[in-house]
Amino acid sequence: MELTVSRTHTESSEFILPGDLNSLGYLFGGKLVSWIDKVGAISAIKHVRGIVVTVSIDNLIFKKPVTNGSVLTIQASVNRAFSHSMEVGVVANTLPPGDSVPVHVCTAYLTFVALDEHGKPKEIAPVIPETEVEKRRFEEALIRRNHRLSLQTQLGKGPGKA
Amino acid sequence: MELTVSRTHTESSEFILPGDLNSLGYLFGGKLVSWIDKVGAISAIKHVRGIVVTVSIDNLIFKKPVTNGSVLTIQASVNRAFSHSMEVGVVANTLPPGDSVPVHVCTAYLTFVALDEHGKPKEIAPVIPETEVEKRRFEEALIRRNHRLSLQTQLGKGPGKA
Amino acid sequence: MELTVSRTHTESSEFILPGDLNSLGYLFGGKLVSWIDKVGAISAIKHVRGIVVTVSIDNLIFKKPVTNGSVLTIQASVNRAFSHSMEVGVVANTLPPGDSVPVHVCTAYLTFVALDEHGKPKEIAPVIPETEVEKRRFEEALIRRNHRLSLQTQLGKGPGKA
Amino acid sequence: MELTVSRTHTESSEFILPGDLNSLGYLFGGKLVSWIDKVGAISAIKHVRGIVVTVSIDNLIFKKPVTNGSVLTIQASVNRAFSHSMEVGVVANTLPPGDSVPVHVCTAYLTFVALDEHGKPKEIAPVIPETEVEKRRFEEALIRRNHRLSLQTQLGKGPGKA
Amino acid sequence: MELTVSRTHTESSEFILPGDLNSLGYLFGGKLVSWIDKVGAISAIKHVRGIVVTVSIDNLIFKKPVTNGSVLTIQASVNRAFSHSMEVGVVANTLPPGDSVPVHVCTAYLTFVALDEHGKPKEIAPVIPETEVEKRRFEEALIRRNHRLSLQTQLGKGPGKA
Amino acid sequence: MELTVSRTHTESSEFILPGDLNSLGYLFGGKLVSWIDKVGAISAIKHVRGIVVTVSIDNLIFKKPVTNGSVLTIQASVNRAFSHSMEVGVVANTLPPGDSVPVHVCTAYLTFVALDEHGKPKEIAPVIPETEVEKRRFEEALIRRNHRLSLQTQLGKGPGKA
Repeated sequence: MELTVSRTHTESSEFILPGDLNSLGYLFGGKLVSWIDKVGAISAIKHVRGIVVTVSIDNLIFKKPVTNGSVLTIQASVNRAFSHSMEVGVVANTLPPGDSVPVHVCTAYLTFVALDEHGKPKEIAPVIPETEVEKRRFEEALIRRNHRLSLQTQLGKGPGKA
Repeated sequence: MELTVSRTHTESSEFILPGDLNSLGYLFGGKLVSWIDKVGAISAIKHVRGIVVTVSIDNLIFKKPVTNGSVLTIQASVNRAFSHSMEVGVVANTLPPGDSVPVHVCTAYLTFVALDEHGKPKEIAPVIPETEVEKRRFEEALIRRNHRLSLQTQLGKGPGKA
Repeated sequence: MELTVSRTHTESSEFILPGDLNSLGYLFGGKLVSWIDKVGAISAIKHVRGIVVTVSIDNLIFKKPVTNGSVLTIQASVNRAFSHSMEVGVVANTLPPGDSVPVHVCTAYLTFVALDEHGKPKEIAPVIPETEVEKRRFEEALIRRNHRLSLQTQLGKGPGKA
Repeated sequence: MELTVSRTHTESSEFILPGDLNSLGYLFGGKLVSWIDKVGAISAIKHVRGIVVTVSIDNLIFKKPVTNGSVLTIQASVNRAFSHSMEVGVVANTLPPGDSVPVHVCTAYLTFVALDEHGKPKEIAPVIPETEVEKRRFEEALIRRNHRLSLQTQLGKGPGKA
Repeated sequence: MELTVSRTHTESSEFILPGDLNSLGYLFGGKLVSWIDKVGAISAIKHVRGIVVTVSIDNLIFKKPVTNGSVLTIQASVNRAFSHSMEVGVVANTLPPGDSVPVHVCTAYLTFVALDEHGKPKEIAPVIPETEVEKRRFEEALIRRNHRLSLQTQLGKGPGKA
Repeated sequence: MELTVSRTHTESSEFILPGDLNSLGYLFGGKLVSWIDKVGAISAIKHVRGIVVTVSIDNLIFKKPVTNGSVLTIQASVNRAFSHSMEVGVVANTLPPGDSVPVHVCTAYLTFVALDEHGKPKEIAPVIPETEVEKRRFEEALIRRNHRLSLQTQLGKGPGKA
């Protein structure tokens, strides 16, 4: 079986209830990020068919608020696998009550590693982009990764220094 | 009253229960991110004394897993205010059961805007760093911001394109 | 736009965490039913583009337990619309950790009504089945409905008598 | 000790909070079903004094919406034990804020099996109905069971076919 | 209708799941207290048929831990009404998995006030104890109240001094 | 290292969301008590650096309601250690949205025991009060303890009698 991007595609729909809201009456950001992490992890699991852990979240941008009673659809797929990590892209759209056209709410890029049975990071097979969009995201994943590394260098960060 | 960084300092302690874990027995990443968003928002509220909303999360890095029964301490403060947004830095440390020395778990940088009574973004007063650490973070906040903008430019991103 | 069954298709993926389990270490039935109701409602909303409420749940059968760390995928679509109600079929499959082949976990049939702006039930447009499977489910929805009504008659039930 | 129906009687009261509501301001159906499953399981446990699992939910009918601030009372008892399964009947009533007379909200019929220490289904002792209502429910449980089996036959369903 | 103690009797059963536990594998105390407050409030509502708020919790004593898979039964009734407050007594018992004899887990005494439609405390009618146990609790409620007041006096406490 | 009171100081901030409210639109008491228990337990853990369990809650007094969108700050410290138990004092303050001055919401006194690795209560080292406030609370802890014991004697209570 070919390790395509489409094989990692994951979708999850939520129906926004009052218990999901912040005090302004919009979907609480922490709840949305929690769902994004869950859907991203499932996508990474579909690629490696084993245990994964989130190592970082970047460029998570909230574009529009989500209202009570809306349907929220979160989609994720593995954009690119590096030798010991993989970038998963996540997009969330909302369909407000009574509307027909979904609205773009949020994007995020998560990095996962795969663990072997001893809890050690293991090598990850490449993922194969097929469509134009998948190929664009495959290229952009490298740009984001280089940016991340160059920022770390510029800030002279090691672990434990905040 | 001076609008110092220390005035925005916020701390929240959690006691990790089985209902907070993922299937590996470690604190579920989505739960941690949800707490980070909450503590970051409180810090931003302390600066503007009004309504704030999260616009982005960046450089959220999970460094160590958190085990069942640990005490988790999350600390946040406003690193720097730009005219219409502010960067909040968040650090999480854990004290595993029986241990005496906290372990660094996670850092994250969140951007918030402040809203007026009509829900429109409003101007944010500068925040005054006092200590060496606060001054370093104040400088780094600008580096991170420029990096973020230069990445957006390089990727040619507008809203709604993922 | 044609009101096809496929237009109502809804999918939601969950990653099973310890907080979702019962005391045997399997997914708690009440949690699964709660997710089934949510995904079923989203499917009904996609058909009527308005407010819906669940009026009954039938033939909900748990076939296999779901283990910690599994990926659970719940799928729903509107099987058939009667004049003032519609049947939504829901299927749940699980992918246990490390496995490649999903296992069938649960089916359920939910009946929803659509409400107008005054909270009164409103007429529902027919839904058009296209594939063989959709056509079979369309026929079965009527059999289930007739069975339900004949059971109510046989038991001489009116509202409020349990 | 006699294995009467009354020995299996279980009651649970909930106070409806905003976090329990759907976007219309009524108790979220999935939450109610989750409570019904919990109360039904406790009733089945009282009969067999061991481990039980839900195998099906039928004829769950929502008759009235439940409002914020209401007291909800859920009652369950074992209607009839067959050799390897038992039917539990569940009724929910609500007392809206300020009212004196409870309103009938929902009924449901759940089937449970009992498991031995190896997780295998074990035989279930008969349950003894004593009152007129218990005897009527005892008879109706058989009618519902036969209906369920005849429906499965008519639809030609085996496991895994949805 | 007579305002008897028995009219305020409230019972709620919970089935203990892994998500309810603390890191030792026992029911998390905070969860138990949250349920105690809920059941106590329902009992107070049954007496005044209106809005109530908790003003204090006293003598809440945890006697035994509650294990995973246990059935927990919480019972409450109004012990005594003073002119502007009422004491509700709450008892929790547990039935561990496979056991036949419930074990006493916890008692607590909560004080509630009733609010009128303007949110102001209103007078509360006396509650009538009928059984020996109810009469004993009625007497003890006064002893506990006097103790509480004498302790406040001894500590010289006014509001806001901790 | 000296076992001071200040070493046990614990703070936790919450941002009040609609899912935390009761039907009156104020923070649900059970939720607040659950947070108080959590923060109190963390304070006790900081003193003994091991496992603790709550044995009682006393004098928990709700002084003001907490509104949606408020920041709630809960602070705890060990007031006094007796040979086999310790009293933890907890204070909660709220900052309503847009306000600058925190309002006192609630105080509570919790008693914890420390457990050794066999789950048996173990001796607890004394805690050293340093400030005037800490010394006052140290004295009051003894008054509260004596009151508790004298009340138990007066009521003739043994375990299991409610």
